[in-house]
Amino acid sequence: MADYAPPVKDISFTLRTISDIDAIVDLPAFDHVDVDMVDGLLDEAARFFSEVIAPTNTIGDEIGARFINGSVITPDAFKPAWAKYVESGWGAVTGSPDFGGHGFPKTIGLAVSEMMTSANLAFSLCPMLTGSAITLLTRHGTDLLRDQYLEKLINGTWTGTMVLTEPQAGSDVGAVRARAVRNEDGSYDISGTKIFITWGDHDLVDNIIHLVLARTPDSPAGTKGISLFLVPKFLIDSDGNPADRNTIETVSLEHKLGIHASPTCVLSFEDATGYLIGEENRGMSYMFTMMNQARLEVGLEGLSVAERAYQLAASYAKDRTQGRAAGAPGPSPIIEHPDVRRMLMTMKAYTEAMRGLVYDAVAAEDRSHHARTEDERTTAEDRLALLTPITKSWCTDRGCEVASIGIQVHGGMGFIEETGAAQFYRDARITPIYEGTNGIQALDLVMRKLPMRDGAVVNGYLNEISALDAELEAAGEELADLRSELASAVAVVRQATDWLNSSDDADARMAGATPYQEMLGTLAGAYYLTRQALAARTGDAEDPWMAGKVATARFYAVNLLPRVNGLADAVMSGADLLYAVDESLIGAQP
Amino acid sequence: MADYAPPVKDISFTLRTISDIDAIVDLPAFDHVDVDMVDGLLDEAARFFSEVIAPTNTIGDEIGARFINGSVITPDAFKPAWAKYVESGWGAVTGSPDFGGHGFPKTIGLAVSEMMTSANLAFSLCPMLTGSAITLLTRHGTDLLRDQYLEKLINGTWTGTMVLTEPQAGSDVGAVRARAVRNEDGSYDISGTKIFITWGDHDLVDNIIHLVLARTPDSPAGTKGISLFLVPKFLIDSDGNPADRNTIETVSLEHKLGIHASPTCVLSFEDATGYLIGEENRGMSYMFTMMNQARLEVGLEGLSVAERAYQLAASYAKDRTQGRAAGAPGPSPIIEHPDVRRMLMTMKAYTEAMRGLVYDAVAAEDRSHHARTEDERTTAEDRLALLTPITKSWCTDRGCEVASIGIQVHGGMGFIEETGAAQFYRDARITPIYEGTNGIQALDLVMRKLPMRDGAVVNGYLNEISALDAELEAAGEELADLRSELASAVAVVRQATDWLNSSDDADARMAGATPYQEMLGTLAGAYYLTRQALAARTGDAEDPWMAGKVATARFYAVNLLPRVNGLADAVMSGADLLYAVDESLIGAQP
Repeated sequence: MADYAPPVKDISFTLRTISDIDAIVDLPAFDHVDVDMVDGLLDEAARFFSEVIAPTNTIGDEIGARFINGSVITPDAFKPAWAKYVESGWGAVTGSPDFGGHGFPKTIGLAVSEMMTSANLAFSLCPMLTGSAITLLTRHGTDLLRDQYLEKLINGTWTGTMVLTEPQAGSDVGAVRARAVRNEDGSYDISGTKIFITWGDHDLVDNIIHLVLARTPDSPAGTKGISLFLVPKFLIDSDGNPADRNTIETVSLEHKLGIHASPTCVLSFEDATGYLIGEENRGMSYMFTMMNQARLEVGLEGLSVAERAYQLAASYAKDRTQGRAAGAPGPSPIIEHPDVRRMLMTMKAYTEAMRGLVYDAVAAEDRSHHARTEDERTTAEDRLALLTPITKSWCTDRGCEVASIGIQVHGGMGFIEETGAAQFYRDARITPIYEGTNGIQALDLVMRKLPMRDGAVVNGYLNEISALDAELEAAGEELADLRSELASAVAVVRQATDWLNSSDDADARMAGATPYQEMLGTLAGAYYLTRQALAARTGDAEDPWMAGKVATARFYAVNLLPRVNGLADAVMSGADLLYAVDESLIGAQP
Repeated sequence: MADYAPPVKDISFTLRTISDIDAIVDLPAFDHVDVDMVDGLLDEAARFFSEVIAPTNTIGDEIGARFINGSVITPDAFKPAWAKYVESGWGAVTGSPDFGGHGFPKTIGLAVSEMMTSANLAFSLCPMLTGSAITLLTRHGTDLLRDQYLEKLINGTWTGTMVLTEPQAGSDVGAVRARAVRNEDGSYDISGTKIFITWGDHDLVDNIIHLVLARTPDSPAGTKGISLFLVPKFLIDSDGNPADRNTIETVSLEHKLGIHASPTCVLSFEDATGYLIGEENRGMSYMFTMMNQARLEVGLEGLSVAERAYQLAASYAKDRTQGRAAGAPGPSPIIEHPDVRRMLMTMKAYTEAMRGLVYDAVAAEDRSHHARTEDERTTAEDRLALLTPITKSWCTDRGCEVASIGIQVHGGMGFIEETGAAQFYRDARITPIYEGTNGIQALDLVMRKLPMRDGAVVNGYLNEISALDAELEAAGEELADLRSELASAVAVVRQATDWLNSSDDADARMAGATPYQEMLGTLAGAYYLTRQALAARTGDAEDPWMAGKVATARFYAVNLLPRVNGLADAVMSGADLLYAVDESLIGAQP
């Protein structure tokens, strides 16, 4: 199967045209970062992840994480890869300089993460969850805990996990039952069984730092009675080194459709020693503060898998000859056949559209923390809040779609595991599920985000899209198709948005949430490709790549964007039709 | 995981409301069949396939077909299952009574096949390909070959294969290179390597009858120089029993994403003895005569996997409690949440819509052979020709979509292999590829089928759909939403159809083929559900199941049918945008 060639040029172009990386790097928080460093960093990351991590992807899928004598064993190739990852400092890109991190903006960290995730999604989940642990600890940990754990998490000596789910508490995290009983020394005894713990046990590092949701005795019911604890696999001694094993048992490992190399563990805590993060009963609110980050990163996974699937399919379509394209003298590479070309252009357009969305959202995250004024920070925070569910859901759904198209481009070979296309199809399928299913994202979008500031946040976003019309008009005939498609798509999305925001029927709004989310995501994709097309027209006229960006935006506008028209009725038809078939008539009817 | 409960009631309803099975059984060719036998047969089949075959599905996936010492070994559970299948005569339902078959209409055979395929897709492929071999041999074989092979193929003593593909000849079957050299005794020596041979070797029977495409020396290039041969694994002696092993070697077995229990073989023929079917150089035309049948059967696979995935998801959604639905006193089964309900209704509506399409197409096949008048046969043949690519492509694409939704309904559990939802997602993925990729189907639809009789065939179909408007109007307010959605969908599909049929730009028509195919399939789904809704309204008023059919049609019309609006621009925008990005800019761009 083909290698992974990180799309540095498009990443760099997106950082500039969508994230406005120059402005981010210019913020006071990033005084130590110079924009000239960015391209060098991208090139360095491209080299590292394509050469060191990408070759572990197929091996990881074939061998997978194994459960042997109560411990999780990773594929052999992962150990040197992890060691090089740590040695090269890739885990420390965005970490706080107070604890050995490089303090780069998240936006740049995300560009690096894109390459890592394309290189090996299963591998990338370990740093990704470690990153969530770092965020929680940085923001809410005591000084002692930060001193004890942060530096080693940032430099990759140790890794972190998120321990939320229990058999009865999946989407409904508030149903968590794990218990936490306070000891006299201020530590807690944590007990309970937790499932779906990504990288919950493994052999790459000598300590694993679990961030665990549990309830103290007499805590309020539901989400308001949940506290967050740091529970290390090995307790650390006074020198900060791993010492006694904590009472955490790895019970089993799940046998999954994809991401085989990412160990998904059942963990049993039996009076395991843990340390409170922040205050009791505030665990869920802390979790929410890192949720945006994690959801954007899962959205990124959709993009990253799509990029890899696209590269593989394009490479096959250029090599494989079959039949004869119109006017061709002999057998044609299948990329010349219209149907295959449509599939590849769809893969390309979706992938680049996703990149725009993800990189805009993460830039909003950076600005929400570091913009110069309170107003700017609030505006960015609102934008991030709006874009988070769209990014998570739309990019993961499109990631699955692109991976599936990737199989189709390969024809029969796509169904053969050794080709590699099937792995992306299997791996991608988890992304619409975890970190809040896409149905949960849709509820968040419609019930919480659309009503923000009386609709001003979503309408502000739609207004930005509409405002492109003047630029498109000025661009003339070349972008006429894009202009008219964008205008009519904005109109229908506005109509659906207004319908949802003016309805006082909560059931109806919830019923329309998923198709609406797809509408807004599809429009967002067009928005970013259009901005890039406009920027590309003023770019280097000698560079055919710029013309390719313009053509990709036009392809998307005419071929993919109109799908919003197919979703509007589903959004605005209320809940009645969903429930018109009696529950007893749904499912097996012998 | 949940059992499979064959949906006998919906199958029976569809046979009556869509296939008009009473009229088919009434045809002279089926004098020996009484319509009263049909329900008994369905019940018998339901019992057999749910009790005997369905339990082999998970085992088949886990163990798979194995390649040991040059032979293919099936999972242990398959041997008694096959023996019971043969013993019960399920392979003989549609076979010719001259050779021990029961001579039932294909329409009834298909209803039985639906249950077999839902029970175990991988298993069902063996009878399915045997059925193709039976058709070819029945129509084009010499009397001697028919006497020697047909009875044992029909009763399941032996099985058959289709041996077409070679590494360089996939979608382009005309590129076949396998050689056939005539011997003095009239037999041929067949040599060449063939790939992707489904059930090409196995241990369920004592002979396998390969139907092989190969070229005789000096044959014309391309599809016009290909001949068809019967090549048995074991040559038969004068008593008709397997004797000497033919020189066919099983080289290897593919490692596939799904249908693990269906052995996909590489076969090497080295001067293997074969017998010409029909005349030299006419092999491809014979293949085309059985292609409709095979393509409908693959369309059926989409339906069958969807039905099984839907049953599993519905069962989970009724058991699993999580969160609290609006107004519920305590934890709710997730089926009560709007987003989950939307997913299940989408699965249900698509599955029943597919059933209508498949059962209409196969009824057309029966009428194309057996209707009383030449006119009726020709009309049916035209209808079948039109519906074949739509059935194959739309049902397989929807099968994948429904299986994917099935995973999503399960949340995190859907990604765990033991749950069973993932198998359907993996198994279904082959169906848009084999028996002509869906892109090939789209070209067939747009380039060959739409122009038939100057567009009269497709327009006749659209007119039938439009003609429902009067009935919908008469049905009044209850079906008002369905009526208006159907009317506007027909209008946009007509526009796209007219555009394609009036264009003289072949590239543009090919470019629009795939989105058009999805449009027409989506409309077809609404057509059948609407006919069923109208029939259900005049059905047993006491039966809530009938009201469920009406509500399902309305759900589909409002929530799924409008997707045609999202596809029209892609159909009618020509080929230019597909090729606007230079080929060198597609794929990896470091």
